[in-house]
Amino acid sequence: MKELQELRNRIDEIDSKLIEIFEERMKVVSEVGRVKRENGIGTLNEKREEAVIERGRSLVKDKTYEESTISMLKSIMAISRSHQNSSNCRDKIDAIDKIMDSVVEKKDKPRVVYQGVEGAFSFEALKQFSSDCSYTNVDNFRDVFEALENGECDYGILPIENSSTGAINDVYDLMREYKTYIVGEELVRIEQCLFGVQRAKIEDIKEIYSHPQGFSQSSNFLSQYGDIRLMPYNNTAMAAKMVSEENNISKAAICSKAAGELYGLKCIKEGINNLTDNYTRFIIVGKNLECDNECNKVSVILTLPHVSGSLYETLAHFANNGLNMLKIESRPTGDKAFEYFFYIDFTGNLDDGVTRKVIEDLACESIDFRLIGCYKQSCDMIK
Amino acid sequence: MKELQELRNRIDEIDSKLIEIFEERMKVVSEVGRVKRENGIGTLNEKREEAVIERGRSLVKDKTYEESTISMLKSIMAISRSHQNSSNCRDKIDAIDKIMDSVVEKKDKPRVVYQGVEGAFSFEALKQFSSDCSYTNVDNFRDVFEALENGECDYGILPIENSSTGAINDVYDLMREYKTYIVGEELVRIEQCLFGVQRAKIEDIKEIYSHPQGFSQSSNFLSQYGDIRLMPYNNTAMAAKMVSEENNISKAAICSKAAGELYGLKCIKEGINNLTDNYTRFIIVGKNLECDNECNKVSVILTLPHVSGSLYETLAHFANNGLNMLKIESRPTGDKAFEYFFYIDFTGNLDDGVTRKVIEDLACESIDFRLIGCYKQSCDMIK
Repeated sequence: MKELQELRNRIDEIDSKLIEIFEERMKVVSEVGRVKRENGIGTLNEKREEAVIERGRSLVKDKTYEESTISMLKSIMAISRSHQNSSNCRDKIDAIDKIMDSVVEKKDKPRVVYQGVEGAFSFEALKQFSSDCSYTNVDNFRDVFEALENGECDYGILPIENSSTGAINDVYDLMREYKTYIVGEELVRIEQCLFGVQRAKIEDIKEIYSHPQGFSQSSNFLSQYGDIRLMPYNNTAMAAKMVSEENNISKAAICSKAAGELYGLKCIKEGINNLTDNYTRFIIVGKNLECDNECNKVSVILTLPHVSGSLYETLAHFANNGLNMLKIESRPTGDKAFEYFFYIDFTGNLDDGVTRKVIEDLACESIDFRLIGCYKQSCDMIK
Repeated sequence: MKELQELRNRIDEIDSKLIEIFEERMKVVSEVGRVKRENGIGTLNEKREEAVIERGRSLVKDKTYEESTISMLKSIMAISRSHQNSSNCRDKIDAIDKIMDSVVEKKDKPRVVYQGVEGAFSFEALKQFSSDCSYTNVDNFRDVFEALENGECDYGILPIENSSTGAINDVYDLMREYKTYIVGEELVRIEQCLFGVQRAKIEDIKEIYSHPQGFSQSSNFLSQYGDIRLMPYNNTAMAAKMVSEENNISKAAICSKAAGELYGLKCIKEGINNLTDNYTRFIIVGKNLECDNECNKVSVILTLPHVSGSLYETLAHFANNGLNMLKIESRPTGDKAFEYFFYIDFTGNLDDGVTRKVIEDLACESIDFRLIGCYKQSCDMIK
């Protein structure tokens, strides 16, 4: 299209001028950074930024473009600030570089800990993760981290997110509490089934035992049986085990087919989950940072200053460097009411210069920052 | 400081040129938008944007500024796209304007529904919300929305977030499912207490009943009593009622002081929550949008296109317009595995032109968008 091409040529000419002037501005900005550094003055000066905006507003001739012009000035100031910051926080950058360089190799024949009992979905994740490992099980999520910390295992397996019910908050909070790294992830397809004792029919059931996630994922099915009492349990497979041991016709469990069969129960109804596309994402955690050239996903935890737009400026690093943000979760810090930390997954690899630069920038601008892993994404397979 | 002032004067001069060139560029961008509109061509052209970036990269003279220059070009293209979009989605803007104009007045002597029983924290939120209302209670969160939908009440009261344990996901999901609006919020200070029957001591207790949130908020206290079984219950006050009715020395409940006393129980231990600053935020939901000049907080729910940086560009609207994002939650859409919708709270009022413009822009750029309320923020009091 000729008209479009001509307009684009004009934009190119304008951009050449724009870049020249921008570069000139960045040189002065660097000077400002040096003066501030030498005099111990912080980067952000809200009053000065407001003055720049107000001056800019008065200079716009066609008011149609007023909002756009102010947006442009604001992003240029954010870019300048980020440039000054990265010259001003050598210590933080050195510390994060040291961590990025501490990568170790994957363990051979590892000792792995999972939560639950045989037949649990965590156990399926374990089998997917490694066919050549020794394993033990523990009762709850915290025990997995304790086992890692005490050197009782090399890796732990934990569910972090279900595709239909969302984040598993306890695991996010424990990841922040313990100094461990994510070294891999496994996606397990979840089919929830209702299992009872051998002669049981749906009419006999008065109580159903399962993990609360088992109930949420099967809420449509369960809504037809309002009289049945739902009894939360630590783990779906443990619920199956208990129902099998109690051998009472009025008790049933929601669990995987594998778990129900393992404990000799009868399947009353298969596939009772609301969505047929139901997956749980498990993370593999270890004591050390691992990263090889197959890894394409990075996870970080950060707390940001309480300044308007600070999350926006953080996300700018991903957008401006072509890294895709895959997930963001906010969780209370637990230190002060309604203060949050962010858990962010994005595409990248620690051997790649752009990824490293983005991680350094995030570390500079955060109050608290932790790189918690670089690993291979498993979600692609279902997209 | 003279040196700093001189540098700033130079930046001002440069900005005058920058704004002139930027305005020139925006005029051409508007032309491009018109041509695209007339020919049914979409706004985003990734190939063209990449070409602009590569051309820009080759024009930077001092490589120190390469990353900053690319960031600048990317944000200018995002600003241009947003400008073109807002001329291209008149229908969406008209629809959202109609909703913003549908504001009704607050109900006098309203009929209010809360979840739980008397003594529940929801009941305290209700008393804080209105001293001049009639009220009834229901068993679960969904029943509150059903009562609203069926016209059985004017307002419903629901917990949405606890300051130490985070979002109450079920309520977020129900807010998306039902076409209701948030018309207010109440902050209730939560003190969890352990209550038993009259002669009970801590040594007698074998089972503790409470809402799972009661357990998480008191996890430090409970970790000292590993042998006591935790029995999840729909509501803390209902747990107290049940313990009172069963009158068994081995059973206790975690609930508020008010609930324990209401059901004639004995307080075994007060204030067992981990954080003394423990609050739950309740929302008041109604069938209609309400907004008066005291309101300073807006809530929206949106789904974004699967394009790198789309969340970043959405947040740009808040940052560029001086509106502060107060909260962001991501939840699975339930339609397809690992697809999310975002729930965002930000500062604003529907009578304010800037807020309206931001809401229109969000509506334009989202796949799905819903304005779910404008109300007075209650969180200020504890900051």
